[in-house]
Amino acid sequence: MPIEIQNLTKIFRKATALDQVSLTLGENRIYGLLGNNGAGKSTLLSIIADRQLPNKGCVLLDGEPVHNNDHALHKLFLVGDQNLFPSDLKVKKAFAAAKLFYPEFDLPYAESLAEKFELKTNKKISSLSTGYASIFRLILGLAVNTPYLFFDEPVLGLDAQHRDLFYRLLMEKYAERPCTIVVSTHLIAEIANLVEHTVMIRRGKVIRDCPTEELMAAAYSVCGPAAQLDHYLTGKAVLSSRILGGLKTACVQGTPEAEPPTGLEFSKLDLQAYFISLMEEENPL
Amino acid sequence: MPIEIQNLTKIFRKATALDQVSLTLGENRIYGLLGNNGAGKSTLLSIIADRQLPNKGCVLLDGEPVHNNDHALHKLFLVGDQNLFPSDLKVKKAFAAAKLFYPEFDLPYAESLAEKFELKTNKKISSLSTGYASIFRLILGLAVNTPYLFFDEPVLGLDAQHRDLFYRLLMEKYAERPCTIVVSTHLIAEIANLVEHTVMIRRGKVIRDCPTEELMAAAYSVCGPAAQLDHYLTGKAVLSSRILGGLKTACVQGTPEAEPPTGLEFSKLDLQAYFISLMEEENPL
Repeated sequence: MPIEIQNLTKIFRKATALDQVSLTLGENRIYGLLGNNGAGKSTLLSIIADRQLPNKGCVLLDGEPVHNNDHALHKLFLVGDQNLFPSDLKVKKAFAAAKLFYPEFDLPYAESLAEKFELKTNKKISSLSTGYASIFRLILGLAVNTPYLFFDEPVLGLDAQHRDLFYRLLMEKYAERPCTIVVSTHLIAEIANLVEHTVMIRRGKVIRDCPTEELMAAAYSVCGPAAQLDHYLTGKAVLSSRILGGLKTACVQGTPEAEPPTGLEFSKLDLQAYFISLMEEENPL
Repeated sequence: MPIEIQNLTKIFRKATALDQVSLTLGENRIYGLLGNNGAGKSTLLSIIADRQLPNKGCVLLDGEPVHNNDHALHKLFLVGDQNLFPSDLKVKKAFAAAKLFYPEFDLPYAESLAEKFELKTNKKISSLSTGYASIFRLILGLAVNTPYLFFDEPVLGLDAQHRDLFYRLLMEKYAERPCTIVVSTHLIAEIANLVEHTVMIRRGKVIRDCPTEELMAAAYSVCGPAAQLDHYLTGKAVLSSRILGGLKTACVQGTPEAEPPTGLEFSKLDLQAYFISLMEEENPL
């Protein structure tokens, strides 16, 4: 049980950011951590990386508490939105510094990635644009070679070409040197094929925690004329529905019948649509 | 010819941001403006809105130059990344101020949108998170009711639920009160179904400018065993190709044959994949 998150609660002045969160992150698997802004994703990740303390609960890595534990903390790396280096440091110096902290950091690989992304390594970190600041941080993550790797919104501000490059590099890395990767992102559709296990949190609570395939089999989409569809939906667990010009589409929890009633059509849900449906469940428009 | 962009060139100290860009933006249509970071999209939009001056060329709106022309400028609104209000102003005061500048600004609608997005209108603009700063600006755009509307990265930092809400509101608005909308975004897949006309720019030059449907019919994807595919590709205009475990996929400019050769498979390209292919054309990995 490589990472055990036990009963974490974190309270800020007014708000409960995490509410008794327990999770197990297994070895050599890619996790998607999904949640809306303010759901508690970044707080969770920064507690795992011991950058914040919880009010209650603890995080164990290979059985050891991470808090104030250099031995455990050297096994993980969090690519977050904070820059941990002095901001007037140049990119190439930051790569060299990373090598001092993380002996497995692959300096030539980091430099080759900088070239691929056209990140100028003689620039100061503070002078990077939103997109290039993201690129700088995700290169650190791709090159650091710790057994546990956390990415918090790694592609913020990246264009489609650079996002695509990042996803391909991540898969390459994972194939060559398997490790535990947790990606927290709002671009759910783009990582749906990468994540083997999905964790969804809402308002500080875990609402889903299972293999992505299993999750996707737990609901389906059905579409048809509104009156007919409403009849079909009676007694079913409807997560969300929409009407566009007389045609209604609903997302339903459960397994569809072998054949849809005449006039209706079943289809598979995609992960992002399913996520949105779950988020809307208690917040209908 | 509502907006005529004539031969715009913009040079910054070292770089040519726009290189003789000419475009016509027709009435009551939704445009997608696509390009990588640094391609010149934001520069183009801010020149259209007269927030920057070009080195050469001009922008005409309904036949009048926009530069220093209040009459023309009141017909357009740019939702950009800059906040144009004093940053210690509260959101609700900013809405009221927008009404002074743009008489058609729909104040009750803006307030109802703030409620839908859970934007607290008694907050100062400066205190909003990245996501809520985006939400504040896109509400201004949705409520302003000018005949020309430009969105520059409107969904930066928004979670999937809020992005989905924005796209739906935009379509609703467009259906109720047609206008010319230009959306510049890196999340191409998400707007592919909304944009009727696509403009792609690369390194300051327009490389595509045509109806989205026409654009998508101009290329296709083909997949199969590498050796077989390479044989098929001989003499064809290959935009990009990838290998994953012996299976190769290529994006080809042109129209596919009625039937693929045995062992190969044709499929339609999606707009984001096509965009990435075009961007890679001269920058192979």
